[in-house]
Amino acid sequence: MSLDDVLARIDADLPAATDRLMNLLRIPSISTDPAFKADCDSAAQWLVDDLKSFGIAAEKRTTPGHPMVVGAGGDGARHLLFYGHYDVQPVDPLELWDNDPFAPEIQDTPNGPVIRGRGAADDKGQLMTFVEACRAWIAVHGSLPARVTFFFEGEEESGSPSLIPFIEENAEELTAELALICDTGLFESRVPAITTMLRGLMGDELTITGPDKDLHSGMYGGPAINPARVLARIIAALHDNTGRITVPGFYDGVPELPKGLRGQWDNLGFDSAAFLDGVGLSEPAGEQGRTALEMIWSRPTCEVNGMWSGYTGAGFKTVLPSKASAKISFRLVGDQDPFAIRESFRAMVRDMLPPDCTVEFSPHGIGKASTFETTGADFEAARQALSDEWPHEAAFTGCGGSIPIAGHFAEMLGVTPMLIGFGKDDDQIHSPNEKYDMESFHKGIRSWARVLHALTK
Amino acid sequence: MSLDDVLARIDADLPAATDRLMNLLRIPSISTDPAFKADCDSAAQWLVDDLKSFGIAAEKRTTPGHPMVVGAGGDGARHLLFYGHYDVQPVDPLELWDNDPFAPEIQDTPNGPVIRGRGAADDKGQLMTFVEACRAWIAVHGSLPARVTFFFEGEEESGSPSLIPFIEENAEELTAELALICDTGLFESRVPAITTMLRGLMGDELTITGPDKDLHSGMYGGPAINPARVLARIIAALHDNTGRITVPGFYDGVPELPKGLRGQWDNLGFDSAAFLDGVGLSEPAGEQGRTALEMIWSRPTCEVNGMWSGYTGAGFKTVLPSKASAKISFRLVGDQDPFAIRESFRAMVRDMLPPDCTVEFSPHGIGKASTFETTGADFEAARQALSDEWPHEAAFTGCGGSIPIAGHFAEMLGVTPMLIGFGKDDDQIHSPNEKYDMESFHKGIRSWARVLHALTK
Repeated sequence: MSLDDVLARIDADLPAATDRLMNLLRIPSISTDPAFKADCDSAAQWLVDDLKSFGIAAEKRTTPGHPMVVGAGGDGARHLLFYGHYDVQPVDPLELWDNDPFAPEIQDTPNGPVIRGRGAADDKGQLMTFVEACRAWIAVHGSLPARVTFFFEGEEESGSPSLIPFIEENAEELTAELALICDTGLFESRVPAITTMLRGLMGDELTITGPDKDLHSGMYGGPAINPARVLARIIAALHDNTGRITVPGFYDGVPELPKGLRGQWDNLGFDSAAFLDGVGLSEPAGEQGRTALEMIWSRPTCEVNGMWSGYTGAGFKTVLPSKASAKISFRLVGDQDPFAIRESFRAMVRDMLPPDCTVEFSPHGIGKASTFETTGADFEAARQALSDEWPHEAAFTGCGGSIPIAGHFAEMLGVTPMLIGFGKDDDQIHSPNEKYDMESFHKGIRSWARVLHALTK
Repeated sequence: MSLDDVLARIDADLPAATDRLMNLLRIPSISTDPAFKADCDSAAQWLVDDLKSFGIAAEKRTTPGHPMVVGAGGDGARHLLFYGHYDVQPVDPLELWDNDPFAPEIQDTPNGPVIRGRGAADDKGQLMTFVEACRAWIAVHGSLPARVTFFFEGEEESGSPSLIPFIEENAEELTAELALICDTGLFESRVPAITTMLRGLMGDELTITGPDKDLHSGMYGGPAINPARVLARIIAALHDNTGRITVPGFYDGVPELPKGLRGQWDNLGFDSAAFLDGVGLSEPAGEQGRTALEMIWSRPTCEVNGMWSGYTGAGFKTVLPSKASAKISFRLVGDQDPFAIRESFRAMVRDMLPPDCTVEFSPHGIGKASTFETTGADFEAARQALSDEWPHEAAFTGCGGSIPIAGHFAEMLGVTPMLIGFGKDDDQIHSPNEKYDMESFHKGIRSWARVLHALTK
């Protein structure tokens, strides 16, 4: 049986597949920092070379930012698109890493071996699960079971500024029947999952200026406005005492959870206490009257991602700062309009500015929330394929993160996205010591072989 | 007349005196940063060598921190102590400097030549005004007109941790009739001043921890507490809407300004608008119902000197931070008890912590406010000497800054401090592009010669 041969080939090739992933992880493709521009290009080139090595017609496509990688292979009745991203998050605070984030290591842990390094889970390891499945399929069968378009982005972690124009310009090439996306996780690290709800995102950076230079707090403290205090007041005002966000109009378009879905989620037996305990917490801190799962999957949020002002080095400096800055992001759900929310947020900030203070904004990533259909035969076939690979039956789940690409495929190209991923809750993506379980990598590759088989048989 | 000879010698020696100051400014003696420990030692050694070069018996005295410099010279009926500090503030943000802060330059400006570099005004330039006056006096007369003890500290900008034990251990040597301190300024950059009121200081650093690691804001945003939001709420709560500080008991010991002093200050004709305009502001932002001068000289304040959390680099990172920190300082007046205020502040912070958050505190500089007598004959003699040197009559003024040493001399040794300095409002001490006017340096040296003469004739 052809699938078994592919699965056997995957098992036999795992050491080599791991080596390839380690090579990709060694490239510090941090897209958000211009200092790593050449490295982003190297990661794209590495992927082009790797795809070509097993017969995929791949090339690097330039954009105003980091390049896209597009590859075409296989033939057959069906046309599948696969999306992943080769860029990674910054690595600071570097001192909290136990190893060099770009010198990946295989480490034994009580939960089995893991691949430790920046990008191991988000998203290089996940991206390579699909690539390795295709490589094994071709090795066994000589070609893929469908026409497959590979599409790898290098700006996912920096707001995807080039993505929409690129999709527009290459719509024909990218329009497939189904868009497979590997950038999500297992449910509670155990249950294979197809993600059908994604939160949207609106990120904004603001810098408040008071005095035109840093001042001596003894000389000016009192009469001179302190922008750090102004920023603190604004941030403090973004939530009320019940955890609700106060930006005017923010909840427009936020739906209540349908009863049926709420019932399904309740049945998942999500362990909120264990989820929080894993990061040193004990109480859900968000909106009163909502479960933790509801908060993550179906409620909007506002978070301070970064904040800085004045002297932040060792010791003390009695400076009265000229500027105070914050990076703030909103996760969005339902029909919330990210552009309207950006305007409302900025208006609220301007309204709170005292005399002599000015504010500058710098926009970051933006995208609406998405909910996808799960009723087609493809979804049931894929769910069954995942259930065959893993010890638990696969579930349709929500996701607190934002993967705007899924919405773009649906809205711009009319292509149904199917989000399947193998990340675990403790992968520490976006954090120090990111890892990807060897089990996720190995079973992830096998899962894609099963899904390819299920979608094309 | 002997004073005229000294003044002429000072004028003739100004280029050499400037060269000496430039050499001292080249030593990056940042006391707050352990990376500059050796440089602090070099600055102390430079001063020892310089004092010895004109006959002062000087030596470096080790402390658990940076060394003290103590020198003894002259004889006569009177015993004067002189205090200055050789350490300087950190230099960041470095990119806002127009020249290397430790490659000082003489620059022409519309207001005359200035010495530009870190420490030019605070306090190396000021310290050297006294040293140069003594050098010139000895060059003309062969010895000083009084017994003079030189006492230079290297930890003034980092909270003076070694100062109190050192004064205790060397009380006999340091006990003089009068302690001359050169670390203050002219009034409004024009009027020579003897400072008779100093604010106290209580500095504290706090770090709030929520989750035990940085998290992905998509995955945890909502149920996980964000310490940056907690810190913002605490900072926002430190002032009420009228600008008053809310720390319980904070105003205990804050006196209303005596009517007489208020009248004197009103007569100074302080230009609040020009003071604020010089730093890009237009409205006094502090306590309602107080003048700007009152706020700076006689009212307590609370300032955020630094604040940081999460990702502060280029671009965006949707992190939910584990920690948020701030450096906060309070300027104190009257009989406010800095130790009681530290406890009350910390209790207030702890009371505001939500579940799952912890806080750690790290104490910085602490000292009570001081008010000094000005009625003795010495003060009138010094005031007259300053009036002779400058185009305006000298004034007794307040000062918004904190110079705990003045209080220590008074309380620990019973020595009356006399604070005379030549800084200008636009010297940008503690800021980028610090400078000291050549006029301040030159007339400052001449002023000390006149004051030495006035106190000993």
